Amino acid sequence: MHPESKPLGEFDLIQRFFKTGAEAMVQGNHNTIALGIGDDCALLKPIVGEEIAITTDMLVEGRHFFVGADPEKMAHKALAVNLSDLAAMGAKPLGFTLSIALPSANSAWLESFSKGLFGIAKQYSCPLIGGDTTAGPLTLSITALGSIPSGKAICRSGAKVGDDIWVSGTVGDARLALAALRHEITLSTEHLLQVERRMHQPTPRLDLGIQLRNVASAAIDVSDGLLGDLKHILNQSKVDAEIYIKKLPKSATLQKQNLGIQNQFAACGGDDYEICFTSSKVQRDVIHQLSINLNLPLTFIGQITEKKNVDPTIKLIDENGVPLSGTEAAPLLKSFDHFAI
Amino acid sequence: MHPESKPLGEFDLIQRFFKTGAEAMVQGNHNTIALGIGDDCALLKPIVGEEIAITTDMLVEGRHFFVGADPEKMAHKALAVNLSDLAAMGAKPLGFTLSIALPSANSAWLESFSKGLFGIAKQYSCPLIGGDTTAGPLTLSITALGSIPSGKAICRSGAKVGDDIWVSGTVGDARLALAALRHEITLSTEHLLQVERRMHQPTPRLDLGIQLRNVASAAIDVSDGLLGDLKHILNQSKVDAEIYIKKLPKSATLQKQNLGIQNQFAACGGDDYEICFTSSKVQRDVIHQLSINLNLPLTFIGQITEKKNVDPTIKLIDENGVPLSGTEAAPLLKSFDHFAI
Repeated sequence: MHPESKPLGEFDLIQRFFKTGAEAMVQGNHNTIALGIGDDCALLKPIVGEEIAITTDMLVEGRHFFVGADPEKMAHKALAVNLSDLAAMGAKPLGFTLSIALPSANSAWLESFSKGLFGIAKQYSCPLIGGDTTAGPLTLSITALGSIPSGKAICRSGAKVGDDIWVSGTVGDARLALAALRHEITLSTEHLLQVERRMHQPTPRLDLGIQLRNVASAAIDVSDGLLGDLKHILNQSKVDAEIYIKKLPKSATLQKQNLGIQNQFAACGGDDYEICFTSSKVQRDVIHQLSINLNLPLTFIGQITEKKNVDPTIKLIDENGVPLSGTEAAPLLKSFDHFAI
Repeated sequence: MHPESKPLGEFDLIQRFFKTGAEAMVQGNHNTIALGIGDDCALLKPIVGEEIAITTDMLVEGRHFFVGADPEKMAHKALAVNLSDLAAMGAKPLGFTLSIALPSANSAWLESFSKGLFGIAKQYSCPLIGGDTTAGPLTLSITALGSIPSGKAICRSGAKVGDDIWVSGTVGDARLALAALRHEITLSTEHLLQVERRMHQPTPRLDLGIQLRNVASAAIDVSDGLLGDLKHILNQSKVDAEIYIKKLPKSATLQKQNLGIQNQFAACGGDDYEICFTSSKVQRDVIHQLSINLNLPLTFIGQITEKKNVDPTIKLIDENGVPLSGTEAAPLLKSFDHFAI
C-alpha cells in the first residue's frame, strides 16, 4: 500500500505535520521553553520581571473562512489573529497551542496547513508548544502566549479624556474583499488579490505593540470593526469619543469605491487586525517618528471625550467638521456580533 | 418582550454567563492573575522559581459527548480533562481560557453550562481568565495553565528500567458507561449512575500530581486507555513494560462483568482520567502512605523493562504469572485513535 493512500492515525498525523516542525522551532527557544509539544503539558520558563499574556481565538469553517478555503492561508490567519491580540497588549510572542477538529485526516490538506502555520510561526518567532487533534467539523482554536514587562501591558481601560485616537495601517480592505467574494462589489483581479491578502493573511502588528508600551494609554486590535472595537476601549475607560470619519486611513483600492462604502467598510469592516490606540497629545512627535521607523502609517483619527451617557458614545464628525446626522451615523455605529440575527 | 425570548448578543452572552463569574474568581487570585477576562489578553504573574505548564484539549459534540448531552456535565468534563493534564505533570492550576462554538445562544443551556464550568473551576481554584465565543457546531476548546517549581515537572520521558508502574483510582468505568449507554451491556440504574459519573464528571487528580513531584519518574493521565497511554511513557522513556493484567484496579461494578470485558475495559477503556505513573522501588512506602493520606487507591500494576524493539512493547502477564497469548493480548494492546477507521 502506498503510504499516501493509508488512512493517517492521530499520532502519525501529529508527528508528521506538527511535531517535527514544532520541535525544530523549540530548539531555538530554550531560554523560554523548557518543554515543547509531546507531553501532558508544555513548560514555559517565565522571564524574570515579566508577566505572561494569554489570548485565545476560535475559527470555524463557514463563518471565519469559506468552506474549501486554502488551508495554508487559513493557518496563517488563525495564528495571526491571536498574535494580533498579543500585539494590542504590547506583548512579545512566547509560543502557542493549536487545537484542531478535522472532518478527515487528509495529507495534502495537512501539508498545506502545516506550511502556512510554521510559515507565520517562524516569521514572528512563536513556536507551537502543544495541541490537540480530533475528528469533527473543521474548527481551529489557538491560544497564544506572550511576555511583557510587569505593569507595561497596554489595557483597554487606560484611555483619558483629551487623548488622541490613532489607528495603524489602513482599515476596510478585508471587508471590501468579503463584499467582492460575495459578488456584492466587482473588483479587478489585481485589486481583488490586494484586498484578499488583507482578509486572508492579516499582519499582526507586533513590533508596533512593543513600541507602544510606553506611548499608548489604551489599545485594541481591530477584529470586529474599528468603531465597535473602539467602543470596548470607551466602555472600559469610561469615556466617549469623537471620530473624524474622513481621516480613517483607506487603501487606494478602497478609495475607488463610493464614499458611503468607504466610510462603512473603514468604520465597521472587521478582520483588519490593525491596532487602534489612544495616547496623550504629548506623544504626537514620538508616534510620527515611530511610524517612520516601522514604515507603517499611524493615523490620528479622533479624540477621547468626557463620558455623557451610561453606554459609551462615539460622535462621528464629517469632512467639514460637522457631526453626521443620526441616519448617516447609525449604520456606522453598528458593531459586529456573532450571534446577532 | 420578555428578556429570555430576546436573541442574546455575543457580548451580552459573555457578560452574563462568563464574565461575572470569572471576575468574581479572579478577585481572589490577585497574587497570580494581573488581569482576567475582558481585554485583548489576560495577564498572569508567574511565581518566582516556577515554570508555567500549558495544556489544551478540544471536545466536539457527537464525538466526546453525545448530541443533546447535559451542558453542566459537559462543562465539568471539558475543564476536568485539562486539569487532569496539569495533574499528570505535577502542576497546580493558575487559570484557563475557554473557546466555545455554539449553534445558537440559548439562555437555559448557557446557564447550565456556566454552572458546571464555575462549579469545577472553584473546586480546583482555577479561574476563567479569557475566551472566545462564536457561532458554529458545538465545540469546546480549553487551555489550562498551571505552575510548577522549575525542574520538578513529571515528564513522560523519565521512566527507568526496574521502575514500578502504578495507577490511581480504578480504570474501565467510563468505558463501561459508554457500553451501557450504547446498549451493548445492561446495568442496573444504580450501577449506571455510578459509572456514568466517572464518564461525565471525571476527577482530575491534582493533589496526587503535586505530591508525586518528588516521587514519580514519569506520569501520564489515562485519557485514551491505560495501555495506549502507558505506551507514550515507554516511547519517550525508551523502555518496555510488563503489566500484571489481574492487578488492574477495577470498581465493584466493573468486577460484575465477565473477565474478558473487565480486562478489555480496564486496559483499554478511555476517559478514566486517572494517573498512570512510574517510580523507583525505593518509593513504595512513600506511595502507600500517599494513598492513605489522599484516601485514593494507588495500585502497583507492573514494571518497566529494558527496551527490546523499535516500537515500545508491553508484555501482559496473566493471573498465574504466565504471559498472555498473542490472540488474548492483541485486542488489549490496541490503543484509541481519533482518526483510525
